[in-house]
Amino acid sequence: MFVRNAWYVAAAIAEIDKPLARTILNEPIVLFKSRRGEICALEDRCCHRGAPLALGDPTETGIRCGYHGMEFNREGVCTFIPGQTIIPKRARVKSYPAVAKTDYVWIWMGQADKADPATIADYPPDDQVNWPRAYDMLHLKASYVMVLENLMDLSHLSYLHKGSIGSSEEDSAKASMDVQRTPGGMKFLRIMRDADAPKNWLKRYKTKAKIDRWSEFEYVAPSIILQYSGGVNAGEYDAGVREGGHLVRTIHAITPETEKSCFYFFNKADGYSKFESPDTVRTWASTTDVFKEDAFMLEQQQLRLENFDTDKLMDINTDVARVQMMRALKERLRQEQELAQAS
Amino acid sequence: MFVRNAWYVAAAIAEIDKPLARTILNEPIVLFKSRRGEICALEDRCCHRGAPLALGDPTETGIRCGYHGMEFNREGVCTFIPGQTIIPKRARVKSYPAVAKTDYVWIWMGQADKADPATIADYPPDDQVNWPRAYDMLHLKASYVMVLENLMDLSHLSYLHKGSIGSSEEDSAKASMDVQRTPGGMKFLRIMRDADAPKNWLKRYKTKAKIDRWSEFEYVAPSIILQYSGGVNAGEYDAGVREGGHLVRTIHAITPETEKSCFYFFNKADGYSKFESPDTVRTWASTTDVFKEDAFMLEQQQLRLENFDTDKLMDINTDVARVQMMRALKERLRQEQELAQAS
Amino acid sequence: MFVRNAWYVAAAIAEIDKPLARTILNEPIVLFKSRRGEICALEDRCCHRGAPLALGDPTETGIRCGYHGMEFNREGVCTFIPGQTIIPKRARVKSYPAVAKTDYVWIWMGQADKADPATIADYPPDDQVNWPRAYDMLHLKASYVMVLENLMDLSHLSYLHKGSIGSSEEDSAKASMDVQRTPGGMKFLRIMRDADAPKNWLKRYKTKAKIDRWSEFEYVAPSIILQYSGGVNAGEYDAGVREGGHLVRTIHAITPETEKSCFYFFNKADGYSKFESPDTVRTWASTTDVFKEDAFMLEQQQLRLENFDTDKLMDINTDVARVQMMRALKERLRQEQELAQAS
Repeated sequence: MFVRNAWYVAAAIAEIDKPLARTILNEPIVLFKSRRGEICALEDRCCHRGAPLALGDPTETGIRCGYHGMEFNREGVCTFIPGQTIIPKRARVKSYPAVAKTDYVWIWMGQADKADPATIADYPPDDQVNWPRAYDMLHLKASYVMVLENLMDLSHLSYLHKGSIGSSEEDSAKASMDVQRTPGGMKFLRIMRDADAPKNWLKRYKTKAKIDRWSEFEYVAPSIILQYSGGVNAGEYDAGVREGGHLVRTIHAITPETEKSCFYFFNKADGYSKFESPDTVRTWASTTDVFKEDAFMLEQQQLRLENFDTDKLMDINTDVARVQMMRALKERLRQEQELAQAS
Repeated sequence: MFVRNAWYVAAAIAEIDKPLARTILNEPIVLFKSRRGEICALEDRCCHRGAPLALGDPTETGIRCGYHGMEFNREGVCTFIPGQTIIPKRARVKSYPAVAKTDYVWIWMGQADKADPATIADYPPDDQVNWPRAYDMLHLKASYVMVLENLMDLSHLSYLHKGSIGSSEEDSAKASMDVQRTPGGMKFLRIMRDADAPKNWLKRYKTKAKIDRWSEFEYVAPSIILQYSGGVNAGEYDAGVREGGHLVRTIHAITPETEKSCFYFFNKADGYSKFESPDTVRTWASTTDVFKEDAFMLEQQQLRLENFDTDKLMDINTDVARVQMMRALKERLRQEQELAQAS
Repeated sequence: MFVRNAWYVAAAIAEIDKPLARTILNEPIVLFKSRRGEICALEDRCCHRGAPLALGDPTETGIRCGYHGMEFNREGVCTFIPGQTIIPKRARVKSYPAVAKTDYVWIWMGQADKADPATIADYPPDDQVNWPRAYDMLHLKASYVMVLENLMDLSHLSYLHKGSIGSSEEDSAKASMDVQRTPGGMKFLRIMRDADAPKNWLKRYKTKAKIDRWSEFEYVAPSIILQYSGGVNAGEYDAGVREGGHLVRTIHAITPETEKSCFYFFNKADGYSKFESPDTVRTWASTTDVFKEDAFMLEQQQLRLENFDTDKLMDINTDVARVQMMRALKERLRQEQELAQAS
């Protein structure tokens, strides 16, 4: 079961220069821009013979099927049928609320009358909107829940990412961890004081001195994680310093494709580069490489857990944030079920 | 369910220079020529250990299994067992009536006593048997029914093939359409008068003048479509002229592999080239490219219709021939069921 | 159903220089050497989040999970959890008895208290332990039973391997065959006297004279076959001569991965080369090529027998050893079931 009444990232805006077929929450969807520029999300299956509309062409107000030429507007209503003048009422496909915000097309998979774009996650915040940004997407053969769990347990950095962004096992062991529930999910603050910088940071910031490293992660159920993290010289964090070293705002948007696969969108605003000349800014590109380390692990984990009773798994102390995240997600799923039963 | 009491194209004769394994109507079949030249079609599974006979070698009267050497004749009866002289009666594999006609091996999947080669579709007709021919086959991950439906609704030419053989949307809208049931299925005649020639024709016939374009399609249930179509100068069609421009006789034979896949054989006799010297005749090769446009669409359509209730789809006016074709096919399936229940 | 109380070859020792993930009898297993050198076989699924331990690193006494750092010893007991000092009793993964013998890691999939390494097949015998050896493995999409059946019916050599190691059909027809049950399975002796040498032998032994060819095969249920075979000059076999020509001791170890796939390990000790200088010995490498002929046939046979009632297949005279082998295997499976019910 999925949470349907939520905004999911469906695609990067740059992906829909041509109609894009993408399965979201098990439903085939076509994402495109009408020729007048509106963002559209329709059922990717013509009501005539079932052809994918994504193989058709955008029209002024919608899209034309590439098989036999039926046209639909962004509400999914058929506006033209070749060879006939009467258009029956049942000539329509499902439509989905869709809006553009911050590099992405966001889609609402639930009851259309509840779709309020104002509830889309704010990213980046107003005072950081001009930080240089870079983004990418990984299509994973793993449940979106596993990606969320991965991000909620940063203890994995010392093992899975020990060669890139992981701090040492010793530094990780002394990290402080503060976890809180929020109205829309939960958040945590993890701080390692007086720690060594991870290998990838050393390549960029040219320092081997001790640092304070912090990570603020906010989970917005069901599928968004907002990250604010960085590193400053040891002792500076408690003095309120945040700038000068590694400094990022990242949104992680994990959109279920099926129960066993997802699209992992990530978008990093780089606070370290914010004062550089626009001509020389080079937003650090290694994020995808690091997340591919996760991707490989998650896909293997998915295979190990198929046909396996996950109740046999056990939580450990470092799971404190992950456990709270799962509670928030289950609570959200429970609300969704109540809503479905009431209507 | 499939119609079993029917002749299907199993392979091009040229495909069985060596034994060929092919699944037809979900049954594994080996097609080959015995060394004395007879066309044979047997169950592709030795009755000893289940090895595919297609991995064996033809003998004078049949085939020898490549695993442990048992031999079978074209009736599927075992004629030799290494290491023993007595051949039990149960030592046999299923055999299928198979005959060669017009470039193809035809196979009968039903009751052998009903297999009459005289009922195989006549193609090409006697007066056109010397037209130069070209043929090809596409192995599609789509139901054979979808291919039939595709061919029965030529309105798709203006959309799916708009860059190759499609007439303009306007010309398509003014096409006349005459549909009739036949004893073995149905047929239609579609005429576009005073129309522009499609792009592919312009490349060949070097004219931009208006043409009359006609298509006669006869559906012979369950899986054959006989096409006779062409184009002449505008005004000539009603005067009885058929020659001088594009002019083809095509047989479309769509053989189910499984419920979700098929072999689409097509064979085009080219009336435009019929007076050319045999040395210079060059039968137009683009048919496969055009049909690959269909293939891609059909495979995507198949995916969209899996786990989908096709009763939700709707017919439109241009479906008139497709709807009649489906009636003829369902009627044929119903006859088949009655036959099965009676026996 | 599989025989669990048995030693299976899990891997060549050379394969586990790094942790190796391998599914055996449907169970995901990680095979590795601890840093102190012990052979280990554990469930390849961390009890924390299900990550494959094969993606982790060996420790002094076991392995550390590469995801969040939990450590396990060779008994599967957790010895370290990052971030906590108390280790709950349930923190463990399944462990399997595993030992090294003659190039291989052997694993016991059943009740650990019944695992006696002394019962692992002796190969090669003491007086032949210094013969040069060569080995390889094929990962087959076919049931392990099909590989056993293949090896128990050497009549297939004249057909499937007629271009490599097969004798002629005529020589095969005159082979004597002696089959006997043994406490652990069965064995057969097959002799072709005064026969032609197969093609591959001619390449090596430079003789076209007639030979006596013999094959002793011992099946040790459920999955081991010990082969002793060779060829000498015609007339020499009955005089007790075994050396001078083709002479091999081979162990075939076929380990089920799933019901429909297996690992086929083979290891050939070459008696022909035993007196050669170690510098010039070149153990004959063609075995893998020959067995790939089997592999292709077996995978195709597997496909033909899926969704097919194998009771419809029939035995022939040359199946005498195969039939005895199947009886021994079924007897062993029956014992296993009784054992399971008793406990």
